[in-house]
Amino acid sequence: MESTDKPTTPPPKSDEAPPPPPPAIRRVNCFVVDVALRVLLFAATLVAVVVMVTSKETEFVPVPPTGAMMRRTAKFNHSPAFIYFVTALSVACLYSIITTLASFSTILKPAFSKKFLLHFAFWDVLIFGVVASALGTAGGVAYIGYKGNSHVGWTKVCPNYDKFCDYIISSLAMSLLASIVLVLLIFLSIFSLYKRARD
Amino acid sequence: MESTDKPTTPPPKSDEAPPPPPPAIRRVNCFVVDVALRVLLFAATLVAVVVMVTSKETEFVPVPPTGAMMRRTAKFNHSPAFIYFVTALSVACLYSIITTLASFSTILKPAFSKKFLLHFAFWDVLIFGVVASALGTAGGVAYIGYKGNSHVGWTKVCPNYDKFCDYIISSLAMSLLASIVLVLLIFLSIFSLYKRARD
Repeated sequence: MESTDKPTTPPPKSDEAPPPPPPAIRRVNCFVVDVALRVLLFAATLVAVVVMVTSKETEFVPVPPTGAMMRRTAKFNHSPAFIYFVTALSVACLYSIITTLASFSTILKPAFSKKFLLHFAFWDVLIFGVVASALGTAGGVAYIGYKGNSHVGWTKVCPNYDKFCDYIISSLAMSLLASIVLVLLIFLSIFSLYKRARD
Repeated sequence: MESTDKPTTPPPKSDEAPPPPPPAIRRVNCFVVDVALRVLLFAATLVAVVVMVTSKETEFVPVPPTGAMMRRTAKFNHSPAFIYFVTALSVACLYSIITTLASFSTILKPAFSKKFLLHFAFWDVLIFGVVASALGTAGGVAYIGYKGNSHVGWTKVCPNYDKFCDYIISSLAMSLLASIVLVLLIFLSIFSLYKRARD
């Protein structure tokens, strides 16, 4: 964050190192990174939701117990796990829009930045929990669809619906990215509070 | 936290309110709550792992496609989701032991408390992500076992293995408690850092 400001500071007149940027500029820089990460969170959650919702595929598949070929459709809303995933990621997407605006307002009015950091950290942790559990839920069900489970007789789904499974995997990858971004946002808030506690 | 110290402070000589406890005592109190929560985290994760691992049940069940009754055993390690759950909760259990000792050492040596708060908050967030995703994964698979999925022909497991399912639900409840404790621990660290940034 600080390195981006160094070219704008005046060159030192003597052999001394250039003075560090004032705390106000550092705080604004912290919120610029915050806004950028929140925009990335918005993009990741939006793509995850759109890809999951558009993952419909219709194929001729053998239907037990007769094994006759029938036209069947695979949709995300056939599984409660994927419905929970879409709900959770939609909440995270909406949250990212609200907090991007709030974070942007903090750049313009740095006076409330400390309180914002506290609230951001609290809410980011809760949303992170929701997104991580949704990723786990959808991932667990997708794994059964991919590998099946011979112990309880749950058959594979992916050999019949390869496009559907590709969409699910892409959506899960996007939600993993959203989780990583949320962890970075929490770390940023915590580290900013720590820096201010130390100053 | 402060209320526990009030009886030990000397009574006020005049009409003035009693003076607030010094920052050092408040910091120690924060770590006392921290240690208590970490002990609770240890207990919750340990119970979750033990209950999940001991959830074995053997029953006579109809085996498709003939429907003949056969002696079959349900064990947690028949599902990769439950194996991931046990691994994640075991890591959280080990983590809770290490951090309980570290937090306890901070009560004895409060000089490093700010650095400890930072590290605790970082690691608590990561462990929270692991526990939340494990809870989601195991919960998603347990839900299929409980309700089945008619769209893909995945049959219910719980009508045949009721004791096994009771164990799984108890274990999931314990991991939910562990997740809540981790959220409280993260909030405690963040709020302590915020208080110090404000002081």
